[in-house]
Amino acid sequence: MFQSKKNIIAGRNPVTEALKQQQMIDKILLFKNASGDVIKEIRELAKSLNVPVQYVPNEKLNSLTNINHQGVIAFKSGIIYQDLQQVVDWVNEKGATALFVILDGITDVRNIGAIARTAVCCGAQAIIIPDKGVGALNEDAVKSSAGALEQINICRVNSLMKAVDTLHLNGIKVFASEMTAKKRLSQLDFKEPAAVIMGSEDKGVFPALMKICDEQFNIPMAGDFESLNVSVATGMILYEAMRQRMPD
Amino acid sequence: MFQSKKNIIAGRNPVTEALKQQQMIDKILLFKNASGDVIKEIRELAKSLNVPVQYVPNEKLNSLTNINHQGVIAFKSGIIYQDLQQVVDWVNEKGATALFVILDGITDVRNIGAIARTAVCCGAQAIIIPDKGVGALNEDAVKSSAGALEQINICRVNSLMKAVDTLHLNGIKVFASEMTAKKRLSQLDFKEPAAVIMGSEDKGVFPALMKICDEQFNIPMAGDFESLNVSVATGMILYEAMRQRMPD
Repeated sequence: MFQSKKNIIAGRNPVTEALKQQQMIDKILLFKNASGDVIKEIRELAKSLNVPVQYVPNEKLNSLTNINHQGVIAFKSGIIYQDLQQVVDWVNEKGATALFVILDGITDVRNIGAIARTAVCCGAQAIIIPDKGVGALNEDAVKSSAGALEQINICRVNSLMKAVDTLHLNGIKVFASEMTAKKRLSQLDFKEPAAVIMGSEDKGVFPALMKICDEQFNIPMAGDFESLNVSVATGMILYEAMRQRMPD
Repeated sequence: MFQSKKNIIAGRNPVTEALKQQQMIDKILLFKNASGDVIKEIRELAKSLNVPVQYVPNEKLNSLTNINHQGVIAFKSGIIYQDLQQVVDWVNEKGATALFVILDGITDVRNIGAIARTAVCCGAQAIIIPDKGVGALNEDAVKSSAGALEQINICRVNSLMKAVDTLHLNGIKVFASEMTAKKRLSQLDFKEPAAVIMGSEDKGVFPALMKICDEQFNIPMAGDFESLNVSVATGMILYEAMRQRMPD
């Protein structure tokens, strides 16, 4: 993962302060043997803010900065993360129909960038990502998105299962593509508030997540080749949503 | 552009023989001051087979091979190019409805790969590319296509204008996307034989080519962001074609 040096915060107090001020942090690297009250506080703050913490040898930290890092480095994010419930409320307040994209295990930042562009073009209001197992929304992703990642709401959650619960509590249906599903993409009802889960090309959607979806659908394939690029598949799905929602 | 060494043919006679045997050649590099009858023959053969020739300094050739190249190197292609008219005849013979994708100025091999995957999935029978100004169908492109580039007919032509003429003579309508067009993608008739021209993200479709198209259309955008990745846009268009063509 690429991280430019200007995005680094190093040292126990600077990182604690950044977290307390709720500055947007992509992740924190902690020296694996670091201990003490401040380290404990950093870990607790990180947990409460859904910031992933990685434990690394001291050499790793030394290679990233010349500043006296005291065993702690944080990477600032260019992205401002939003709270999912607040985004839902905002969509409802402006009288829009929710259209969200949930990314499950999409690691290629170019795909994430292309999905963000498509989401903005198709009028989706948010992208929901887990705090682990997704490609970093770093400068490469922002570049691939042609700026779209900075224009759409990004909700980072610590559990996609809980995020789907939140959507359900707000009356938002959750769809997932599954090759063996009987229902076709064009048979889904996108006129109602909806979210679509996109799984990785190799593993698909996480089974437990698939289970709590409201509808499974397939993208009909005319050819006998069954593998679309995930950003292309997202494009087809959001195009179908847009087609259904647009006035004739 | 990546080209592995095993794909290189070097020397005047080997390259002449490869051309005479109609082996598939991506392009030929000629020492810019090379002359003589054999060089003239190579140039003429290359022209007749739509193989692009590039004139380079001797150092460039030396950097590519240790073989005595005599001022000539050819890159073998992993792709077998097909004649457009023959592909049209083959589609008609099997009673299918033509669906072709024409690439105009698409240089990113990853996009070309993703477009090939989508084309195969959506039942398109051919991709038409010009012999110049398109990304090389090299190993990177084949890899991005997950093998799809080897499963679909690729027609390499020396003029996209002439290719559109050929399509017209065969009763195949040619569509191009244009942001300002009034007609929407979903209003096109894909039940008839059709080809779609995809232009580059920055320049769009070449104006003279746009002029001889049968229909211009827009992909309706719900958001106010107007730039889709070209492989995502191709996905939306081919999805629409497939949606119209599939029985309910």
